[in-house]
Amino acid sequence: MNIDMIDAAALRLCGHARRTPLLSSPFLDAIAGRRVYVKAECLQHTGSFKFRGGWSAVSALSPEVRARGVIAFSSGNHAQGVALAAKEHGIPVVIVMPSDAPQMKIDNTRAFGAEVVLYDRATEDRDAIGARLAADRAMTLIKPYDEPQVIAGQGTIGLEIAEDAQALGVSQADVLVCCGGGGLTSGIALALETRAPGLRVRPVEPEGFDDVARSLRSGRIERNARSSGSLCDAIITPQAGDLTFPILKRLCGPGLVVSEDEALHAMSQAFSRLKIVAEPGGAVALAAALFRPDDVQGDAVIVTISGGNVDAAVFARALRSFPA
Amino acid sequence: MNIDMIDAAALRLCGHARRTPLLSSPFLDAIAGRRVYVKAECLQHTGSFKFRGGWSAVSALSPEVRARGVIAFSSGNHAQGVALAAKEHGIPVVIVMPSDAPQMKIDNTRAFGAEVVLYDRATEDRDAIGARLAADRAMTLIKPYDEPQVIAGQGTIGLEIAEDAQALGVSQADVLVCCGGGGLTSGIALALETRAPGLRVRPVEPEGFDDVARSLRSGRIERNARSSGSLCDAIITPQAGDLTFPILKRLCGPGLVVSEDEALHAMSQAFSRLKIVAEPGGAVALAAALFRPDDVQGDAVIVTISGGNVDAAVFARALRSFPA
Repeated sequence: MNIDMIDAAALRLCGHARRTPLLSSPFLDAIAGRRVYVKAECLQHTGSFKFRGGWSAVSALSPEVRARGVIAFSSGNHAQGVALAAKEHGIPVVIVMPSDAPQMKIDNTRAFGAEVVLYDRATEDRDAIGARLAADRAMTLIKPYDEPQVIAGQGTIGLEIAEDAQALGVSQADVLVCCGGGGLTSGIALALETRAPGLRVRPVEPEGFDDVARSLRSGRIERNARSSGSLCDAIITPQAGDLTFPILKRLCGPGLVVSEDEALHAMSQAFSRLKIVAEPGGAVALAAALFRPDDVQGDAVIVTISGGNVDAAVFARALRSFPA
Repeated sequence: MNIDMIDAAALRLCGHARRTPLLSSPFLDAIAGRRVYVKAECLQHTGSFKFRGGWSAVSALSPEVRARGVIAFSSGNHAQGVALAAKEHGIPVVIVMPSDAPQMKIDNTRAFGAEVVLYDRATEDRDAIGARLAADRAMTLIKPYDEPQVIAGQGTIGLEIAEDAQALGVSQADVLVCCGGGGLTSGIALALETRAPGLRVRPVEPEGFDDVARSLRSGRIERNARSSGSLCDAIITPQAGDLTFPILKRLCGPGLVVSEDEALHAMSQAFSRLKIVAEPGGAVALAAALFRPDDVQGDAVIVTISGGNVDAAVFARALRSFPA
């Protein structure tokens, strides 16, 4: 993994991924006690940054391999990102989803052109299903984060942050990144290492799912005790990847951890002050900037909003529980 | 009013106003039956396009005149736009607001650095208060739409639409614009007349407040019977302006009218498909594109979301009433 791969991914994404804006509000600055810049990746196609990694991986395949199609496991943002990238490349795509996934996510994934293969979480092995499908149809499996071209695609966000920070005169700042398996975090960290070395990436996770923060402290990959039961569903992977963790360890500052309520509160602030929709897992970095200011350094902070795919009921709950 | 004034405003706004993105979603395309491109001006500073006109007008004043400060009447988006523009210019600003305006709007306007002068709607004359203040302090009144530099500022949105449409290969389309007094609509129409003559601007209004649609039919300025009582508070001005209407008459296609429920439904679609927050008055153009497709022409349509300053309760109601 290196900056050249990220630059190459940026060229492939140009004209396909959206260049998302870096937003701000004096009201958020007042809460955080420093300037807050928000990379609104919820405005990306499919409502999350995952489209970048999906497009990067699909577009990096050789034409012959790509034509046979791609496959992904996911009930969430990676599914939609890969599905739309495949659809726009005109190739077949299979998404393996649990049969108890919300109907709307299944419908959306199909609407993005994917063949959805459902499996029973209790009785079937998702990896076995995927392996069989990949073998039978000679399709390429696109993993959600531990895959170089996926990391390179997410890293293009780092290139944009570096450009925008320079234009704003921000050369020293913490960059808080919503962190699950570490694909987004490691990609941004790699981009900034070369393009904005004064910007320090720090992963942010929800309480109870802080494996990366603990891993950065211990120096080796730690696991979460639980793998479900959080509103921050987008970022509760069991552990960092074998590819992503060494990058995180080499480049990132200490991890930050916020509560679910802080994430909901940040969603409400993003609604009232930035006019954007964040999902709980996509709001943890903003929550850290707003509600853990003593844990952040510098007179400016940059945060990612990684996605906005949230049910209306959860969103309304955030607004009701935390009026601006 | 001409394109040179809009180009000059764009130069003054550069680095201060945000260049807002043109968003899209295959789900919206499917509802509308054509490609839908959404100019997300809710992402502008202060949450609405009004910051552009405010900045344009304040920055166009001579330094001596500007230093004495500016004044505006408004309980809404224009107040915040002028207040922030004045604050960033480091000049005094007075906003005259009704004493029964929502406390949050008063607080926000003060937070943007304005001195708020409250008046009693029932017993006091707002124009007299403003005239006295302007005379006593030699401040410049900035009207919300019938003011050339305000129109020029809003017209910068048209420059951006023209550029982005060209990049997308869209040379013929209706451009649906949320319309109150006509400042935004006339500014965009003037910009497109020169820069994208195949794009035709059409005002969109809520039912019961369709004075511009009627005025375009009759050829003279018509008034609304009511001046309050709509969720679309941002765009229910009594009539088009003496400056704006001749521009609308010369350049715009027929007006479109949508119901309040259609505006709420469009807010819900903007939430779930674009991840942005639209206020009811800011959602009427998207509502027309989605729910009045037979009234629109061409295989692509461009719409403005003019603002996102909506109470959480109204937003939650839109999501509840119109699930995606």
